[in-house]
Amino acid sequence: MLAIDWGLSTFRAWRLADDGAVLGQIAAARGIRSVAPGGFAAALSDLLAAWPDAASEPALLCGMVGSRQGWAEAPYTACPAEAADIAANLHPVADRPGTFLVPGLCYRNEGTADVMRGEETQILGLLGALGAGRHTVCLPGTHSKWAELDGLTITGFRTAMTGEMFGLIRTHSTLASLMPDDPGGDAWGEAYRAAFDAGLDRAGAPGGLLNHLFGIRAAALTGDLTRAALAPFLSGLLIGHEIVALAPPAGTVHLVGAPGLVARYARALERRGLLVRCHGEETAAHGLAAIGRAHGLIGRAA
Amino acid sequence: MLAIDWGLSTFRAWRLADDGAVLGQIAAARGIRSVAPGGFAAALSDLLAAWPDAASEPALLCGMVGSRQGWAEAPYTACPAEAADIAANLHPVADRPGTFLVPGLCYRNEGTADVMRGEETQILGLLGALGAGRHTVCLPGTHSKWAELDGLTITGFRTAMTGEMFGLIRTHSTLASLMPDDPGGDAWGEAYRAAFDAGLDRAGAPGGLLNHLFGIRAAALTGDLTRAALAPFLSGLLIGHEIVALAPPAGTVHLVGAPGLVARYARALERRGLLVRCHGEETAAHGLAAIGRAHGLIGRAA
Repeated sequence: MLAIDWGLSTFRAWRLADDGAVLGQIAAARGIRSVAPGGFAAALSDLLAAWPDAASEPALLCGMVGSRQGWAEAPYTACPAEAADIAANLHPVADRPGTFLVPGLCYRNEGTADVMRGEETQILGLLGALGAGRHTVCLPGTHSKWAELDGLTITGFRTAMTGEMFGLIRTHSTLASLMPDDPGGDAWGEAYRAAFDAGLDRAGAPGGLLNHLFGIRAAALTGDLTRAALAPFLSGLLIGHEIVALAPPAGTVHLVGAPGLVARYARALERRGLLVRCHGEETAAHGLAAIGRAHGLIGRAA
Repeated sequence: MLAIDWGLSTFRAWRLADDGAVLGQIAAARGIRSVAPGGFAAALSDLLAAWPDAASEPALLCGMVGSRQGWAEAPYTACPAEAADIAANLHPVADRPGTFLVPGLCYRNEGTADVMRGEETQILGLLGALGAGRHTVCLPGTHSKWAELDGLTITGFRTAMTGEMFGLIRTHSTLASLMPDDPGGDAWGEAYRAAFDAGLDRAGAPGGLLNHLFGIRAAALTGDLTRAALAPFLSGLLIGHEIVALAPPAGTVHLVGAPGLVARYARALERRGLLVRCHGEETAAHGLAAIGRAHGLIGRAA
């Protein structure tokens, strides 16, 4: 079968054997934003041109391709959920036979709703590496996801708008003009880490995020922070606030994501006394295999 | 003397008698952003053209006109401060005799700095109305100021970037496209207040601001909040977080600012069991008179 993670800005496809083994892989910077409505079947054929004999293989797609802006909207499945619940709610598309969209998850808790779309598949792909018992998984990003697992079940999750707020403040706020352009290669050097740590530590102080954000402006005006320190301090402050407020349980946090961002979160979590285990971003293929297996698209694992 | 509050976007001038009584008033939408460097003396003459015989009167200017972007930079005075401390640090400008810039305040507390420029004058102008003892004053705005007073002294203050964050999120975030354009006249109707209150109440729940912000997106996607409710919910959420985190002491909060914003803060504070007293925006003239008196520009109050 074809296992595909199709997000807003990237496309990744894996060709899986019946036992889930990866036979080949394609990646492209062609997210769903680049596809016109009604054009998804043709765009998929085009993206898979390197595998001409795969045209009639069943395909499982996760990510924003299953949202209102995507191929079709796959309604959210209720959380708690495991692979079988997600497999039971796959959403077939009309214009490519044997092609299914993975639904996102909706978690209702204490009168509020949270949603994810794509991350549920990455989390399912991690399960084999974690084993039985309860686990905490964090997928940092534009919208960071914190999920609680119990055995094979995603029991609940919460999202923090951390990455998006960093981008907004970095680009559009009254702090933006005080910050130099991204120093690029120097981003994760010693000076960066020192300012990042100072921001992390500030997050634990009274006053709240809205007060601490103005504090960056005041520190720039008084010279307490150098211009180069402002962006890393802001990054540490926001990630620190995320972690303090979401208060993950003591023990190990499993981090899944891009290496640079995972390194920041690992540093922040370890500074608060938590243990960290980092995983690569390629867990989506495993998750799609698990869902495909539960749906009978492929056989049992080898 | 001439008492002038010259901010980023507005200009207000009062002509004061020797006993501080207001003899006349001029307001214009010509903030310091509209003045080229080196052009402040000429711009001021132009703005005061209605008072031709005032050309040689001493003038006291507060607000961002005393910042790096203004006429000249008047270095911050250390807080705690009273009118005499500010009067002792007035900054004369070179190109208009008898003209002084009011310095802002810098408050250092527990290793961090906070700053204000303009609000110190509004607060000093309020002192006469408050009497002896300790008071809490809040000036809501782009950067909300919370000051603690003891008798005639501003003992400390904190700033929250609440208004700026509202504007950023309302305009540039992934929530922006979910919100309808500002409903204008309906802004403070019954439905608006209900959504605002829901946002206020959410601010007191666990999870933190970054989580609650994503919750607005989730509530929009699930239909838990209507499109029209998103902006007032966001407003209540941010103001609620500001108040919860800054935790003003029990008692009365004195609010100074534009009526619409003051009404929101009054509702939020009263919902948390605090008492509120609202004051008009015109306290700057009184504050400038107090500073002018301390500097000997005018005589004792009548």
